[in-house]
Amino acid sequence: MTRADLFAQIKQKQSYLCVGLDADVAKLPGHLLSLADPIFEFNKQIIDATRPFAVAYKPNLAFYEALGAAGWESLRKTIAYIPRECLVIADAKRGDIGNTSHLYAKAFFETLGADAVTVAPYMGEDSIKPFVGFPGKWVIVLAHTSNPGSQDFQVVRDDQGELLFEKVIRKARQWATPDQLMFVVGATHADRMGAIRALAPEHFFLVPGVGAQGGDLQAISKQGMNAQCGLLVNASRSILYASSGEDFAEAAKSEAQKLQAEMARYLAGA
Amino acid sequence: MTRADLFAQIKQKQSYLCVGLDADVAKLPGHLLSLADPIFEFNKQIIDATRPFAVAYKPNLAFYEALGAAGWESLRKTIAYIPRECLVIADAKRGDIGNTSHLYAKAFFETLGADAVTVAPYMGEDSIKPFVGFPGKWVIVLAHTSNPGSQDFQVVRDDQGELLFEKVIRKARQWATPDQLMFVVGATHADRMGAIRALAPEHFFLVPGVGAQGGDLQAISKQGMNAQCGLLVNASRSILYASSGEDFAEAAKSEAQKLQAEMARYLAGA
Repeated sequence: MTRADLFAQIKQKQSYLCVGLDADVAKLPGHLLSLADPIFEFNKQIIDATRPFAVAYKPNLAFYEALGAAGWESLRKTIAYIPRECLVIADAKRGDIGNTSHLYAKAFFETLGADAVTVAPYMGEDSIKPFVGFPGKWVIVLAHTSNPGSQDFQVVRDDQGELLFEKVIRKARQWATPDQLMFVVGATHADRMGAIRALAPEHFFLVPGVGAQGGDLQAISKQGMNAQCGLLVNASRSILYASSGEDFAEAAKSEAQKLQAEMARYLAGA
Repeated sequence: MTRADLFAQIKQKQSYLCVGLDADVAKLPGHLLSLADPIFEFNKQIIDATRPFAVAYKPNLAFYEALGAAGWESLRKTIAYIPRECLVIADAKRGDIGNTSHLYAKAFFETLGADAVTVAPYMGEDSIKPFVGFPGKWVIVLAHTSNPGSQDFQVVRDDQGELLFEKVIRKARQWATPDQLMFVVGATHADRMGAIRALAPEHFFLVPGVGAQGGDLQAISKQGMNAQCGLLVNASRSILYASSGEDFAEAAKSEAQKLQAEMARYLAGA
């Protein structure tokens, strides 16, 4: 999916919502558990319910790998089910030496059919470059993540005054174009969002941390939006587990719709 | 497996060799390809041939994930086949927010039955802590990796003069004991091995980069060994693909034996 296609979807749906498909088998509504593939059935109903309000879906691979080969199969079916107008982000946070990263790229882009993969930058250029250059595919580099541990290394200041996550953004921009590369910037860093946008004016940011992690949608939208929106804001738990009963999909729809309505206002204001 | 058990194995086999099970379907000997599970068959024969000379096996998950659910099944069977006296390292290089890292820990330690998992430090403490505390299990944190991209971020010097990988070692040591935590230190950084050993005197280091990547076994052994050996030196391609013919297992055995004989000399000298 190109950047222009993504922006067209955002305008059409008046939404930059990404729904995180973190299907935790321990949290699934009980009535699904007797089905052959409860995870896929859950995802299917979540996707059907939220599709009018979402431009992207992001399965986090940990939730599938925790189930072994069966989980991998649920993931494959889920990705195949996601409507083609939506961006599919494999939230894998991979990063390995060159020849191994190349295999991961093939696994996620070709075997699974994802449009984008999240990658960790610690191992540097040859761990990221193999994800670049697949037509219409995206690499999404962790810059400043939403979790408490983002304070441990990402804000280390070097002897030139540059923070580590700033250096990651600056270097990664040399490895791929804004049509191939996005950055993860946590919603919990709303105070820094404006400064981070200045470092990467054209790039899309994938923004986790709204909802269960407490990020402020208005603040990050105001600070982070660019001329082509430039934001994909992810919510997972607050949508998926809005209800634990048989009405889970209806409750998820209502949560997604609320976020979309708020996003429509920020898009209109921009 | 405890640190004492691992050191006992090292003394018994006179080896600190880890065999990297990076079974690339494109490189498998042709006569295996008609079997039901060529990857497992290849690994099985490699394990049988190298077992007398190896104390650890390290499947890199990329090679299995590239094959989808079938690859995951080959991995599960491979891990189940590895003799219990050997350490099983799931080379996953994961790292995610706390609740997600917890799922990965369960996936690798419980579902797959690995003894150790490699993790990337970029996301900080709450991404690593969930791997700590499983009895007899290990977390192996990337410190200074063997690839060219290790120069991009890992050697960033902060305003106190500390390199990023040094900070990773210093902080991670506060999160787990030397019986729970190892570090990845590439053999391509033999010049720094002594200084890195000084930062973590008791910890085991997993050392990739000997063989195809050109690291020097003698230099890293001399600089890196501690009183309990403290090294697991990995070789993958140089052993697995020593021959591409029907004699691949015999050739792998011979390569592993050569490395073991060299290691026995360094152990005797220490």
